[in-house]
Amino acid sequence: MKKKLSDQLSEKVIINSLLKKLNFNKKGTFNFKNDAAYLSTAKNYKTIVTTDSITENIDFFYNDPPDSIAQKLVCVNLSDLSAMGSAPLAYTLNLSLTSKININWLKIFTNRLFKLQKHYNFYLLGGDISKSSELSITANFFGKAKLKDILSQNKCLVGDDIWITGNLGKSYLGYKIFTNSRFKINSKDEEFYKNRYLYPEPCMFGSIASKYISAATDISDGFYGDLNKILNNKVGASLINKNFLISNNLKNIISKNKSKISIEDMLFWGDDYQLVFTANKKFKNNINNLGKKNNIKLTNIGTIIKSKGIYDDSKNLIKNLSSYDHFS
Amino acid sequence: MKKKLSDQLSEKVIINSLLKKLNFNKKGTFNFKNDAAYLSTAKNYKTIVTTDSITENIDFFYNDPPDSIAQKLVCVNLSDLSAMGSAPLAYTLNLSLTSKININWLKIFTNRLFKLQKHYNFYLLGGDISKSSELSITANFFGKAKLKDILSQNKCLVGDDIWITGNLGKSYLGYKIFTNSRFKINSKDEEFYKNRYLYPEPCMFGSIASKYISAATDISDGFYGDLNKILNNKVGASLINKNFLISNNLKNIISKNKSKISIEDMLFWGDDYQLVFTANKKFKNNINNLGKKNNIKLTNIGTIIKSKGIYDDSKNLIKNLSSYDHFS
Repeated sequence: MKKKLSDQLSEKVIINSLLKKLNFNKKGTFNFKNDAAYLSTAKNYKTIVTTDSITENIDFFYNDPPDSIAQKLVCVNLSDLSAMGSAPLAYTLNLSLTSKININWLKIFTNRLFKLQKHYNFYLLGGDISKSSELSITANFFGKAKLKDILSQNKCLVGDDIWITGNLGKSYLGYKIFTNSRFKINSKDEEFYKNRYLYPEPCMFGSIASKYISAATDISDGFYGDLNKILNNKVGASLINKNFLISNNLKNIISKNKSKISIEDMLFWGDDYQLVFTANKKFKNNINNLGKKNNIKLTNIGTIIKSKGIYDDSKNLIKNLSSYDHFS
Repeated sequence: MKKKLSDQLSEKVIINSLLKKLNFNKKGTFNFKNDAAYLSTAKNYKTIVTTDSITENIDFFYNDPPDSIAQKLVCVNLSDLSAMGSAPLAYTLNLSLTSKININWLKIFTNRLFKLQKHYNFYLLGGDISKSSELSITANFFGKAKLKDILSQNKCLVGDDIWITGNLGKSYLGYKIFTNSRFKINSKDEEFYKNRYLYPEPCMFGSIASKYISAATDISDGFYGDLNKILNNKVGASLINKNFLISNNLKNIISKNKSKISIEDMLFWGDDYQLVFTANKKFKNNINNLGKKNNIKLTNIGTIIKSKGIYDDSKNLIKNLSSYDHFS
């Protein structure tokens, strides 16, 4: 049945004026004029599939900038593709729109999608538009990888190095600034960290370095929680120094706002979309070289050990770890 | 971030007790313990992708039986795969659950999915669970087809036969019975038609007969509207006798309820999930034989003609046709 969104904003208008440009004229999309689309996977490649729904009042607020919502949607999904060792290929989009959503909102939203598609090289395969009392957006992302390069969370070995990409905590500080007006922070930094919360970027190192990596996941549930998934209740982690994970600038801000924020809090928070991965020690140089070549900061933050649990640099067991079960 | 649905109904409980059995132990699902999953497509096959979101108060009502909601979700998507000439392979599921949804609801819902997966031979690849103020479910379905067998809506030629599978109008009558208590109908028929509305079945003839079919679509927006998509404002259709489309039993019910329902109404209503397709006249016997072999009723209801529009058996142009633009 045809679902009319509003007089000005029919499914047809949204598709023709805003979404068609996102299919990049790829043949398998049939220019959105068919019952379904098709995806071509090159010989010897597997199609990697990941999906996330983001919903108003849970993953974002209605007043968030539409381009921030687009950025988060793409980031969470590309981050998962990267953690699987795959490069992005295409996606489908299901928009459940409320009556508050107007054409201008959708323009800003789809312009950001277009920009991200160009940057990360993927196209829109198809989708669905419906109306809802709550804005909700689902995306299925498709990536490609050879079977031998597909990464899993659970293949690390005792003695492997533990690595992390980039720095953590930026998104968390941005979130804290939004929810607490009394932060001691200069306006330039305030702007920077708010943007890290609103416009997170995925780290696509997974597909670049997959042949050296034994296990990987992206940090979306907090550093400790995600490292714990890799350990899988079978091995443990001995960490070198968790201060490595936080930038110097962020450390300065923490020291001025001690009652409001701590490094520990940051390590239980996700949304930075960095990767935590393990690799055999013999690949240390290869990994460091790939990081330099691709301008990605890499830190060797510890080692996989036989004793279960995560231990800090004083050999103390870090407690209160929760492990999350995921459904792709 | 972890999203708690309720104390009894965490994401973990839903995944472990209800959803894991739906992955049929397929390797690419990683038993839902990875950031993403992978799909294997056999050599020379393309992955067909279709997606639909169904939302409370639009596509179904909260009080609808959970197995009816599961059935509709699967039916709309399998029907699209069939219209593309493909057989089902796998799907992803995004559940946006309200606080009203309890474990019993989910059991009935997932049991129906399990049954349909066995029947049509496909498995659950992965998904996402979130909470929402309105029940909303998105599925992405994946099918497989060789490139040369992929069907599109727009490749019919003048002189092609127009075919339809099954009978139309059953779902519409079921819907009318639910919304109008004064129907003159016996209780056995009432039960039958209500069930056709609640538990529609897809017609999987598209993948069986794809090599004979020139253009196809499933009837989800009404017979006229969907036939019109095939005509694509380039050719027309001359229909033989639209009464062929309705079963004798249904015709009897219509004649007893003339003020409430008409054949014309039924032909503007979708949700029967039959296929309308075109084929070169030389394939008439091949198609009829395939129909018999697979126990699928097939009716040759007309011919593609040069004059644009849909004409009835008295050569009158049928008016008020709307064409819908779809987004896969």
